[in-house]
Amino acid sequence: MRSFIAAAGVSLAPHGKTTMAPQLFHQQIADGCWGITVATAQQAAVAAAHGIQRILIANQLVGAANIRIVLDLLHQNPLLDLYCYVDSTAGVAMLRDACRAQGCTQLNVLLEVGFAGGRTGCRDQASVRAVLQAVVDAKDCLRLRGIAGYEGLIQGKDMAETERDIAAFLDLLIAAVDLCRQQSVVVADAGDTDDFIVTAGGSSFFDIVAQRLAMKTPPGAVRIVIRSGCYLTHDHGIYANDFPALQHRLGADLAQRLGRLEPALHLWSMVQSQPEPGRALLTLGKRDAGHDAGLPQPVFHKPAGSGDLISLDANWRIDKMNDQHAYLRIPDGRSVQVGDLICLGISHPCTTFDKWRDIFVVDDDWTVVDVIHTFF
Amino acid sequence: MRSFIAAAGVSLAPHGKTTMAPQLFHQQIADGCWGITVATAQQAAVAAAHGIQRILIANQLVGAANIRIVLDLLHQNPLLDLYCYVDSTAGVAMLRDACRAQGCTQLNVLLEVGFAGGRTGCRDQASVRAVLQAVVDAKDCLRLRGIAGYEGLIQGKDMAETERDIAAFLDLLIAAVDLCRQQSVVVADAGDTDDFIVTAGGSSFFDIVAQRLAMKTPPGAVRIVIRSGCYLTHDHGIYANDFPALQHRLGADLAQRLGRLEPALHLWSMVQSQPEPGRALLTLGKRDAGHDAGLPQPVFHKPAGSGDLISLDANWRIDKMNDQHAYLRIPDGRSVQVGDLICLGISHPCTTFDKWRDIFVVDDDWTVVDVIHTFF
Repeated sequence: MRSFIAAAGVSLAPHGKTTMAPQLFHQQIADGCWGITVATAQQAAVAAAHGIQRILIANQLVGAANIRIVLDLLHQNPLLDLYCYVDSTAGVAMLRDACRAQGCTQLNVLLEVGFAGGRTGCRDQASVRAVLQAVVDAKDCLRLRGIAGYEGLIQGKDMAETERDIAAFLDLLIAAVDLCRQQSVVVADAGDTDDFIVTAGGSSFFDIVAQRLAMKTPPGAVRIVIRSGCYLTHDHGIYANDFPALQHRLGADLAQRLGRLEPALHLWSMVQSQPEPGRALLTLGKRDAGHDAGLPQPVFHKPAGSGDLISLDANWRIDKMNDQHAYLRIPDGRSVQVGDLICLGISHPCTTFDKWRDIFVVDDDWTVVDVIHTFF
Repeated sequence: MRSFIAAAGVSLAPHGKTTMAPQLFHQQIADGCWGITVATAQQAAVAAAHGIQRILIANQLVGAANIRIVLDLLHQNPLLDLYCYVDSTAGVAMLRDACRAQGCTQLNVLLEVGFAGGRTGCRDQASVRAVLQAVVDAKDCLRLRGIAGYEGLIQGKDMAETERDIAAFLDLLIAAVDLCRQQSVVVADAGDTDDFIVTAGGSSFFDIVAQRLAMKTPPGAVRIVIRSGCYLTHDHGIYANDFPALQHRLGADLAQRLGRLEPALHLWSMVQSQPEPGRALLTLGKRDAGHDAGLPQPVFHKPAGSGDLISLDANWRIDKMNDQHAYLRIPDGRSVQVGDLICLGISHPCTTFDKWRDIFVVDDDWTVVDVIHTFF
């Protein structure tokens, strides 16, 4: 990922909500990330409490308590470089009133642009103009620092249409940047902390996001920030499925030079029961692994009492999970025994990390070498 | 629930995995529950560490580490009345070997009976006999204390077929009890701690389970234990949907005398964005509420700055959730504003409790009066 970021000339503020693990945040910053993205005031507080100095809250803050949490962070640490979104004049008014009440004179905001049928964000130029004007009118406390959007939910009827729709959405972000430029609210480039930012998600499409935004903005005029969070562990499901298309778009040469993401989040479970031919129940369930974007995929079988790790193909599958059980389908001619270990890859890191307070880090021999603590 | 248990003459060992909240376990015990059911060794350890004296582990223990956790609990507290399942000779052998190695001479086991296509549990009489014999052969350390099953996953083509299939499954449990009786392994009734137990789940069918098992066993011969966990908070989804059928089966007189379960688990969220007519985004997502058995249901709207709580009907609905967002569909002619509060009921308490480390208890005026800590 670092190679890609360098090659594309963009910044990465990985979404910390994926892991909510400050140890990993610091590793990401040490590896060259520009900042850490979060989704909520609570997550921002966790990141700040663990010493993260640049935090991008990829949501409009609402609620007096949430806004107070964030303004308190800024008050406690004047060096904290923090950003949050606005997508409505009502949201701007809430932030403005809270800032004035608490004496905050420099809250960085990014104007969020959305798409019809999508999630948050201004849907049209009129809304963008209205929110922009509201921010400008509150310049005693709010600073417009850029334009934000999230392309990750765009879904065309096929990959080609999805890619086209994402490109069209990114152009809306650029149009909003141009509007800011016309209104002379773009802060002149005055060093690292005063860049004007344009940011999009990037998870399965970080190539399109980085390249399109770079292509459409004058070199050096804006800082392009992508927010991919799941690259860190990748997965055996939704992200693995999207990766070949991304590599194809990069082209063989660049794809080979950059290398590939590898799934790095595994769950070990045990065969608890083998009550019927072809069926085993594992000691793992919806409490242990994400199940919202495909069920876990068996990848290794370690027979009880054996040192062998047997690779499992796609004929081995989990076809159902309850709260505390997974239903393993065993291919014809293969077998497992009660007490055997089954290692599974997951789909959707976000909904697997949040099931665990502690996650073990292992080396290539599966020896535990560290423990990662999560703060959900 | 207490009225029903008393009327039916059965014992309740509610499934503690639902809440994993020892404060609630103790409230349940104080309200007359016989014990607390758990799913795993880790959950048993949490219950034991918080002073629960009777623990039913509704699974076959596998893995040396898991078995050691449980045997250590018994070693540390000789008064602990603990039960676990066996459904295979391999499982019996693991328990037996561990008991002998650790010097445990009295581990209570329940023989688990399952159904074809179901989850764990012996599928036929031959398996039941084999496991029974294995337990009898290990009588130096294992004590057969009863028969267990779980009817909750039985799903007929309609409610009538489901009810018939559940009754037929319960008869399999009775047949296993009879087999134990023939083999003279049923412990004579020697007071509260030496009952022979027959236990089934009971969640949405606690009436059928209690009545069928009571009807088919001689009075006083066995202790009938149901393990419903979700009755405690009930919900606005799957359990609410099943409840009218249960009341219908009870009959109008008994249903009225017992009263009804009421949903008691709510999530409060805020309108974060209202980007299109009819659509609002709420500050709540898959990280906050169960989404595996239906999405949350909006029940109250509290406009910002107002004390009013407006009841919402089924035309208000959540039609999608991301990790940190919920998509609220607003009925024609109704509206919300950024910053308004929306209160939601949930479906499936188990996958909502596990999203929170602390849960507030409120009184009828929504004033917070206590905090419940969870131990997932």
